[in-house]
Amino acid sequence: MNIIYLDNNATTQVAPEVLEEMLPYFSEFYGNPSSMYNFAGQTAHKLEEARSKVASLLGASSEEIVFTSCGTESDNTAIQTAILSNPDKKHIITTRVEHPAVKNMGEYLSGKGYRVTSVPVDSKGRLDLDYLYKNLSDDTAIVSVMWANNETGVIFPIEEIAQAVKEKGIVFHTDAVQAVGKIPIDVSSTSVDMLSISGHKLHGPKGIGVLYVRKGTKFFPFMIGGHQEGGRRGGTENVASIAGLGKACELAAAHMEEENTRVKALRDRLESELLKRIPNAKINGDTDNRLPNTTSIGFDYVEGESILLMMNELGICASSGSACTSGSLEPSHVLRAMGVPFTAAHGSIRFSLSVYNTEKDIDVVIEKLPPIIQRLREMSPFCEAGNLKLET
Amino acid sequence: MNIIYLDNNATTQVAPEVLEEMLPYFSEFYGNPSSMYNFAGQTAHKLEEARSKVASLLGASSEEIVFTSCGTESDNTAIQTAILSNPDKKHIITTRVEHPAVKNMGEYLSGKGYRVTSVPVDSKGRLDLDYLYKNLSDDTAIVSVMWANNETGVIFPIEEIAQAVKEKGIVFHTDAVQAVGKIPIDVSSTSVDMLSISGHKLHGPKGIGVLYVRKGTKFFPFMIGGHQEGGRRGGTENVASIAGLGKACELAAAHMEEENTRVKALRDRLESELLKRIPNAKINGDTDNRLPNTTSIGFDYVEGESILLMMNELGICASSGSACTSGSLEPSHVLRAMGVPFTAAHGSIRFSLSVYNTEKDIDVVIEKLPPIIQRLREMSPFCEAGNLKLET
Repeated sequence: MNIIYLDNNATTQVAPEVLEEMLPYFSEFYGNPSSMYNFAGQTAHKLEEARSKVASLLGASSEEIVFTSCGTESDNTAIQTAILSNPDKKHIITTRVEHPAVKNMGEYLSGKGYRVTSVPVDSKGRLDLDYLYKNLSDDTAIVSVMWANNETGVIFPIEEIAQAVKEKGIVFHTDAVQAVGKIPIDVSSTSVDMLSISGHKLHGPKGIGVLYVRKGTKFFPFMIGGHQEGGRRGGTENVASIAGLGKACELAAAHMEEENTRVKALRDRLESELLKRIPNAKINGDTDNRLPNTTSIGFDYVEGESILLMMNELGICASSGSACTSGSLEPSHVLRAMGVPFTAAHGSIRFSLSVYNTEKDIDVVIEKLPPIIQRLREMSPFCEAGNLKLET
Repeated sequence: MNIIYLDNNATTQVAPEVLEEMLPYFSEFYGNPSSMYNFAGQTAHKLEEARSKVASLLGASSEEIVFTSCGTESDNTAIQTAILSNPDKKHIITTRVEHPAVKNMGEYLSGKGYRVTSVPVDSKGRLDLDYLYKNLSDDTAIVSVMWANNETGVIFPIEEIAQAVKEKGIVFHTDAVQAVGKIPIDVSSTSVDMLSISGHKLHGPKGIGVLYVRKGTKFFPFMIGGHQEGGRRGGTENVASIAGLGKACELAAAHMEEENTRVKALRDRLESELLKRIPNAKINGDTDNRLPNTTSIGFDYVEGESILLMMNELGICASSGSACTSGSLEPSHVLRAMGVPFTAAHGSIRFSLSVYNTEKDIDVVIEKLPPIIQRLREMSPFCEAGNLKLET
């Protein structure tokens, strides 16, 4: 079956150029970069080349790039190092719409004597900045706010927040896993101290991430072992995946314009056509400040899981929330934080596109989804059939 | 230049069969295993297939296998979970010859109020078991002892130690990174609670590891995030590398006999011929209980780094200690713990073989190394030229 993959915020296809970059580092140039012979020097050189490519995408310098195993490790590392650097401070600030890697780390710390402030969002998923600023205190060890939300795509004003936080001398971290590669980011023009990336969200492989650590930031390793990554992360370097991530960052820079024009246009057409053809549907989140590839649409009176199952039969891949929180019957914590009514939150679907999507992909969804929603509504106990009609 | 790779305890070539197993999971079947559509179900299925293969190599059951990003993460996780599970216990026991992932974790904890006992070894690198047993106490949260040493290949009596530790109700962990795939291991017949594996030490890819966690062991995640790995490790699963590791474990089981016959014979020939041809050289470690692929040879009056550089010119890859501690001018902590004299410790070289090595590889080293040692000794301030002669 032909797959129409519209779940790129969950994970992405490894770009063919990325795989090609990785291939020599499995069975041909497999030396340990820490070894001193020339055979391993080739892999050490590749590491630094990739580090420079990642730095370039972010506007960082190479020595500010620490390779990790995933976005979750990057997030955990950032929060832990800030806490270890400020042993007397017992307060952290995050938001109600973070990824589990930050949210659950906050919950863990709240069980260890930390006070955790979770900044609320409004009905459009926009952060209550006054609330955040009012809660900054001398006791605050770190503020961690995602750059863009994985479910709604809403972009937060990170430059502004980082500056306000740094003015108080507090460490600022951003989980930029969904933002990097989709919107231009230049850390050199911000006050961000640490920033997380995940390789598999931008057509790199799974199992590789980055933590950007601004020069001068006090740092304690999360992964304790060998001297790798300048003493900042133990463990033999994942050379092939790092090489792949370097290439993925290079491609992301090259595709940035397409992402914000062609991909955005595909997303906009998908969104507007679905809203035109399906009554009682609406966009979740602030459409004025969104990632170009993401739309979260709430369909009243239907179950998101049922929609996904019926799309699955047609090879259409999308999601009802974060893959990292799936398996739970609870509706998305992001949509709940936005105050989306229970029925709409339960019936919300996220479509997230990539440069690999085509007009035809969108045509298929526009054609196939409206009758699916209609059929499900006709079976729904929340909905009297006949009261809701499709406009097609 | 033709490479003669004799540094397989640092890292290994990814087996061609392993790479083949990984390839479909980059750009073809790239779904997030947590997603609910069939396209991702294929990757979720592959995960479980690999988990079962890893379990099979260890004599474990699938649900006891937790995938991590490397041996270091597995070691850190084991020690941290034991500590979190026993918050009132402030003592840990490890050895003086552990890998930095355990050794440095111990040092970190000793700065956090923990008492750390490092069990000494004798001149053959054998553990002082009485010392270990005498130090077990009601305050001991965990005992972590490697199964086999990475530098000398000396195998420790893990079954016996695990049983003695468990009889006291104390958590037992073993870093089996160097042992798995080289000697038969069956956790079901031991009292081991947790055991670490690293993919790239057994012809799997870099950036993937395993922590075996015996059913019933109290467990807290080290990587806090999503629900992956049964809630035991957050972060999107590294599907391709996990698939590769599964295949690597299957191959390791198939190659176990060859490892312990042909590879061992190659190692034995290399060792005996070098000792025959080079005076003032001796094996570091207990030759009665060693991994079949490893030999550490001390050459008096020469610098290991100089030997490595001259072998490098000939494409011969070996090491002067652990790759994870290279870059330091200190001689190996393992050899120092064994009381190897400074001159011999500095001039020690580890050769570690794999099933990919041939008779010809060994022929080359036997031919090329003796004159290298002779030349270096002639230049050495510690050695009067003429007093030492090669027997060839």
